[in-house]
Amino acid sequence: MQHSQKIAIVGSGLVGSLLAIYLKKAGHQVHVYDRSPDIRKIQFSGRSINLAMSNRGWKALDDAGVGDQIREIAIPMEKRAIHIGDKLNYQHYGKEGDNIYSISRGVLNRKMIDLAEAAGAEFFFEKKVWDVDLAESTLQIGETERGAWEAIKYDKVFGADGAFSRVRHRMQRQSMFNYSQEFLNTGYKELNIPANADGTHKLDKNSFHIWPRGEYMLIALPNLDGSFTCTLFMPFEGENSFESLKDRKAVEDFFEKNLPDTIDVIPKLAEDFFENPTSTLVTMKCFPWTYNGKVALIGDACHAIVPFYGQGMNAGFEDITVLNVLMERHGDDWNTIFTDYEKSRKPNADAIAELSYRNFMEMSTKTADEKFLLQKKIEKIFSEKYPEKWIPLYSRVTFSDRPYAEALAIGDRQKAIMDEVMMLPDIEQIWDTETVEKKILALLK
Amino acid sequence: MQHSQKIAIVGSGLVGSLLAIYLKKAGHQVHVYDRSPDIRKIQFSGRSINLAMSNRGWKALDDAGVGDQIREIAIPMEKRAIHIGDKLNYQHYGKEGDNIYSISRGVLNRKMIDLAEAAGAEFFFEKKVWDVDLAESTLQIGETERGAWEAIKYDKVFGADGAFSRVRHRMQRQSMFNYSQEFLNTGYKELNIPANADGTHKLDKNSFHIWPRGEYMLIALPNLDGSFTCTLFMPFEGENSFESLKDRKAVEDFFEKNLPDTIDVIPKLAEDFFENPTSTLVTMKCFPWTYNGKVALIGDACHAIVPFYGQGMNAGFEDITVLNVLMERHGDDWNTIFTDYEKSRKPNADAIAELSYRNFMEMSTKTADEKFLLQKKIEKIFSEKYPEKWIPLYSRVTFSDRPYAEALAIGDRQKAIMDEVMMLPDIEQIWDTETVEKKILALLK
Repeated sequence: MQHSQKIAIVGSGLVGSLLAIYLKKAGHQVHVYDRSPDIRKIQFSGRSINLAMSNRGWKALDDAGVGDQIREIAIPMEKRAIHIGDKLNYQHYGKEGDNIYSISRGVLNRKMIDLAEAAGAEFFFEKKVWDVDLAESTLQIGETERGAWEAIKYDKVFGADGAFSRVRHRMQRQSMFNYSQEFLNTGYKELNIPANADGTHKLDKNSFHIWPRGEYMLIALPNLDGSFTCTLFMPFEGENSFESLKDRKAVEDFFEKNLPDTIDVIPKLAEDFFENPTSTLVTMKCFPWTYNGKVALIGDACHAIVPFYGQGMNAGFEDITVLNVLMERHGDDWNTIFTDYEKSRKPNADAIAELSYRNFMEMSTKTADEKFLLQKKIEKIFSEKYPEKWIPLYSRVTFSDRPYAEALAIGDRQKAIMDEVMMLPDIEQIWDTETVEKKILALLK
Repeated sequence: MQHSQKIAIVGSGLVGSLLAIYLKKAGHQVHVYDRSPDIRKIQFSGRSINLAMSNRGWKALDDAGVGDQIREIAIPMEKRAIHIGDKLNYQHYGKEGDNIYSISRGVLNRKMIDLAEAAGAEFFFEKKVWDVDLAESTLQIGETERGAWEAIKYDKVFGADGAFSRVRHRMQRQSMFNYSQEFLNTGYKELNIPANADGTHKLDKNSFHIWPRGEYMLIALPNLDGSFTCTLFMPFEGENSFESLKDRKAVEDFFEKNLPDTIDVIPKLAEDFFENPTSTLVTMKCFPWTYNGKVALIGDACHAIVPFYGQGMNAGFEDITVLNVLMERHGDDWNTIFTDYEKSRKPNADAIAELSYRNFMEMSTKTADEKFLLQKKIEKIFSEKYPEKWIPLYSRVTFSDRPYAEALAIGDRQKAIMDEVMMLPDIEQIWDTETVEKKILALLK
């Protein structure tokens, strides 16, 4: 049992608000600060990628007792729907019942803040935290960076303030703080597929839709209101790039040529394209994550990743699961809680960063590749027959709670095996024979 | 020919003051700011590693017409003196005349500021630059970070303010700015070997002295006054570590056991050890280095490296050489000057960072390894016979002005070749025979 602490959480995003629920349940006083207005009172920004909630996310929500309320705003997706030319291929994610869930970031965030408030957390919006006195776990809050600040002291401070965290910013200025931020040359833009007049979805609603085109790709995830949130991922510069799509005509020509089956379903293509910002994608890593049992980073604030594995929020929620176990185990020994937390999570955060980075290639290129799809089929047959010998990488990441670092290591080993299998002569003919099965079994030895 | 610009240089270190000389020669107005007091008026800090000036450094100094004045304060080192047990091995750096030069950082910095002032640059000490308006190339200067600031506008701003650059700090906060800082678990501490009573050196003066001990090592570089500046590199934590050397007795016992031949020459061992700080070692990378033809980073501010190749200052000076060529080529087109500068230097900065990182192992472990020394001998014989076919990596980095990135790539190829050569049966017996020579020639094909 812990003594009640006065705790500040900086950031009222998904991780900040779920953490608030956990900390309230543990008996603490919780203040959540956000520099932005209350998301429940404003329109969303048009720069969001829909979330894909999977096992790790649900576990954290269920352990907090709020999973069922979130399921009400989630749409199960059981498969990828791969749009190539005028063909549509489906690829199931895993076993029967292995779904990921589409949730609008804004809808979820509003709900999470409601739930955290109901649990007793107090929210302070439009309060800008500019600096943190780490040794004193004291926030410096003010209107502007150069203006007057008010100092508010807490027992603990959590930085749940995202990839550009101010809390981390202060930690970065210490000696021995390792840090990296790396931007992709690919950016993204939100587009929209509205609902039909009767409120139904224009595309299959239980699919994660992908238009893989190599250097760029379009994805679409369903919303409750019958619409889809689409995201176009594309290089900033070059032949097929945001830079090259300068005007309405260029955008429309491009979609007609390369994404013809989207023309009918994205009616306000050019409007969306030029109204919505082009956003960047960054991988951010750092260490340490905590300071002296007083201050801790969590979620994107200490491990921002690119979105291509759909694990950003899930990884942040899993931080909370791990932290909660340690809080239950170590009582008032916050030094141990924070030290064990960062040691246990860091290798897994690095692993999911690497897997997410790699997955852009898989989604944008390989899902359009016959040989890759064959490989997936072979893996699926084998894993169904020998589930204890072979959990496909995607399933281990998405439908299990085994550590990401383990998934990365085993995934690399599986890849080496499948590379050998795919080099078997006539693999296209013999893929479902005993020869292939025996080969895999031999290589697994 | 360029039109005269009003230029601010932030940082009066080695790179800042040499850059000031170049910019004055090009006809610009030059103001150099430093947050510290004038180094000519204070004692040095006791946390410096002596510099090893080599080809790239001399080239930049000679092109500016100040090389001969610096040679007066430099001591040539023609070889490594490797202290193992009570044995002393010498290993020449390159061909006859291939010397590196020991210079005290403080002595050199004072001289460089004198030379820059003589060239007409104006220095402003104890002026703290807290922020830079990048688009307006305007410095924000004040007593404290949170106090009142004075804005001073320039045409161009150079950030030569080192690994923890404030100018870069502002650039870091832009989108699409890639950045990493990574600290080694090894730190360093300055120690001192004083001169003999008659002003002579206690150890061979034309050697770079190394006591390689695996995880840790001691080095000593000669000064003009007969003393040596020593640097102890050692892990922060663990068995043989700064943490483990808690008191006078622990330090003295450690040196007596592991570095016995230094006992007589470092009389104030414990005093130095506890008075001088333990400093950290960081590799810092970033990109871009410039902003809009207005602001540019240079030297450690954009590529801080660990000191194990002796190339930190040399690489910074080579930045200036490259920049100067581009200023002469592109006149008033500062956008092109800055863009070409960062594009040309970035891969070379990354390469010397990698080489420097790798060289810790070579210096601390391999220089004590018989097989490594044999390999160096084989390389030396071969490169003397076929100088056009084989320039050893160290020589290419230290005694040439070929790009660092080329040195890294060719060095990797040479390493693969030498790995094969060293696996020849009986290599210890046949190392100077035609068999080995022919093997290398064959592998080079």
